[in-house]
Amino acid sequence: MSQYRTFTAADAVEYAKRFGGVDDPSALVGAEEIGDGNLNLVFKIFDNQGRSRIIVKQALPYVRCVGESWPLTLDRARIEAETLIEHYKHCPQHTVKVTHYDAELAVMVMEDLSSHRIWRGELVKGAWYPEAARQLGEYLAQTLFHTSDFYLHPHRKKAEVARFINPELCEITEDLFFNDPYIDHERNRYPAALEDLVVGLSHDDELKIAVAGLKHRFFAHAEALLHGDIHSGSIFVADGSLKAIDAEFGYFGPIGFDVGTALGNLLINYCGLPGLLAPREAAEGRELRLNDVRDVWLAFGERFLALAAEKTTDVALAYPGYAQAFLRKVWVDTLGYCGTELIRRTVGMSHVADMKNISDDAMRTECIRSAITLGKTLIIAAPHIEDIDALIARVRQNG
Amino acid sequence: MSQYRTFTAADAVEYAKRFGGVDDPSALVGAEEIGDGNLNLVFKIFDNQGRSRIIVKQALPYVRCVGESWPLTLDRARIEAETLIEHYKHCPQHTVKVTHYDAELAVMVMEDLSSHRIWRGELVKGAWYPEAARQLGEYLAQTLFHTSDFYLHPHRKKAEVARFINPELCEITEDLFFNDPYIDHERNRYPAALEDLVVGLSHDDELKIAVAGLKHRFFAHAEALLHGDIHSGSIFVADGSLKAIDAEFGYFGPIGFDVGTALGNLLINYCGLPGLLAPREAAEGRELRLNDVRDVWLAFGERFLALAAEKTTDVALAYPGYAQAFLRKVWVDTLGYCGTELIRRTVGMSHVADMKNISDDAMRTECIRSAITLGKTLIIAAPHIEDIDALIARVRQNG
Repeated sequence: MSQYRTFTAADAVEYAKRFGGVDDPSALVGAEEIGDGNLNLVFKIFDNQGRSRIIVKQALPYVRCVGESWPLTLDRARIEAETLIEHYKHCPQHTVKVTHYDAELAVMVMEDLSSHRIWRGELVKGAWYPEAARQLGEYLAQTLFHTSDFYLHPHRKKAEVARFINPELCEITEDLFFNDPYIDHERNRYPAALEDLVVGLSHDDELKIAVAGLKHRFFAHAEALLHGDIHSGSIFVADGSLKAIDAEFGYFGPIGFDVGTALGNLLINYCGLPGLLAPREAAEGRELRLNDVRDVWLAFGERFLALAAEKTTDVALAYPGYAQAFLRKVWVDTLGYCGTELIRRTVGMSHVADMKNISDDAMRTECIRSAITLGKTLIIAAPHIEDIDALIARVRQNG
Repeated sequence: MSQYRTFTAADAVEYAKRFGGVDDPSALVGAEEIGDGNLNLVFKIFDNQGRSRIIVKQALPYVRCVGESWPLTLDRARIEAETLIEHYKHCPQHTVKVTHYDAELAVMVMEDLSSHRIWRGELVKGAWYPEAARQLGEYLAQTLFHTSDFYLHPHRKKAEVARFINPELCEITEDLFFNDPYIDHERNRYPAALEDLVVGLSHDDELKIAVAGLKHRFFAHAEALLHGDIHSGSIFVADGSLKAIDAEFGYFGPIGFDVGTALGNLLINYCGLPGLLAPREAAEGRELRLNDVRDVWLAFGERFLALAAEKTTDVALAYPGYAQAFLRKVWVDTLGYCGTELIRRTVGMSHVADMKNISDDAMRTECIRSAITLGKTLIIAAPHIEDIDALIARVRQNG
């Protein structure tokens, strides 16, 4: 019987030897803890040649940055491993490979991606990966289509919904996305100069009603097995390669939530670039980012419709034209959730390097301002933004 | 350990003595099997004065009218009892009281409603219960509000969704409501004279895409714990009293499904009355039925909004104006599901006395025709029917 205990580096090496699935387990000799997150230990396991070979990740029973006062379910390790395994089935080329997991130890072993880099870091530096956006669209389409009612047998779908019930992690999203930024909350963090703008959010009827609708759909619309946190910090990239990681927020929710989170993080980078790069590089980078936004949506939509045409198993949902009608609803959700991601990353507690790394205070404030106003526009105008071109026009208009 | 066995009348009496909760169990002496359904044994338990005192209901492991070739999960007895118990908590005045249940025996004991009559039978005879419609609206509002995201803590809601996963009974609805009537299926039953009308349903793009959307929302939108089959045959009425029974289709689905099923059965009666009653009585009855339709919706909507204003626990959903915006979406769903109920009761296999009892063949065909065309109109036009008055105008227009 395995019982939960926090791993030391030596524990992680022993575990990797037993469950890492490497050909030469005795060659594994060392571990480095590389977790920069708040919730987990992440060990990179090295062999006797100093090469990193495999990753051992263990969930902590509390939120690391806060300490033991904020306990958090260990079941998230099971959810994460099972979400990644499920997504890998449908999109192995863009999902990190999990080779073993143990629910009681809250630990999993997965492929080492040392040849890759976290996409957010690359975006912040102005590095462009020309295939990444279309690959992300492909990941979203494959994973979300194959776990939706279009594809799963209704009995299987219902069992899967029950398997991925994830109350504690969902609650974090429910609070941080949909509550905090729209009320006066101690977790919020934003420049003092934006006080009026932020206070205005909490009094804007149209915005608050739209955000309530987005939260309600997050609660109730079990459309597909989401990644649940697919921002640019949960994505590894390399030349011609993209891999999603960190799926502990996995659960059955609205498809537009994942797509909107993905687009929102590209747009945060768009808003931050003027503060991160020299003017000419920033301008070029922003055009590339808009191109990425277009590519993610078009790759997602095209592949989703192609899969629907080929592989829909439900006789009613297979009727010609229905998948297009559904995709239209996903688009409206996507815009709304994209807006909430922009706002929760700038007003709420979960800030990102795209803004934090801007050294000039006044510039950072202006970049944050533009992310907030864009987020607000998208949430309110979602039903009236016809297509990807109209979205890009709105982004340019926002400045 | 209780193990499943089919009850005899004597078993039912013994069971009622042990679990009926009556003051004088030894007085219980006889049982009559009164089930007219296809899925269950229903025993009325009599005392030594010949008075019926309590009901013992047991699920059969197959669909009774078809025989043992169509097996059906016994878990539906647990679902039924737990749904009724949950609904009783929130609306005791309009939910049958369950005093005991045993999941393994698939049996439950509940209050005897011999003083009541099945509403459908009364509607078919032209009997009017002036309070019934508002009471049904009250039942729908209380049960659906209190099991929704407005009221339940998000952790509890997710656990409840898992508890009420009901794949086999949902599949019956998925097939009979949303598939069969819109394809050439051997289970369909309709007058030969309506062949063109019915075949037309399966080729109508607008209709088929709308029905696919309704089916998809039935699959995915876990808004509240539905009764799942709240037609006029699942409702007992007496002077000033209304009680919902038969909740084996209970599960978390779209609120508009329950409301639409309820309205659909009143509108089937509206369509059937010209064949059931003399012309003058039929005309009067139809006006009363439209009044009932109005009362169900208004009582439901008013109470739902009042509960939302008073008792919403979620801070985002509590924002003023959100409940109204949500109710607007429920209205559109209600119209669509109402339309699918009209069609599945006339084209599909589950026919009802409102049509079956019409003795004149030509008249019955015309009544069925009007139910089908009304159903089709409601499904297609749902987003464009503004309010209850507009619905009633559409019903009159349909003839």
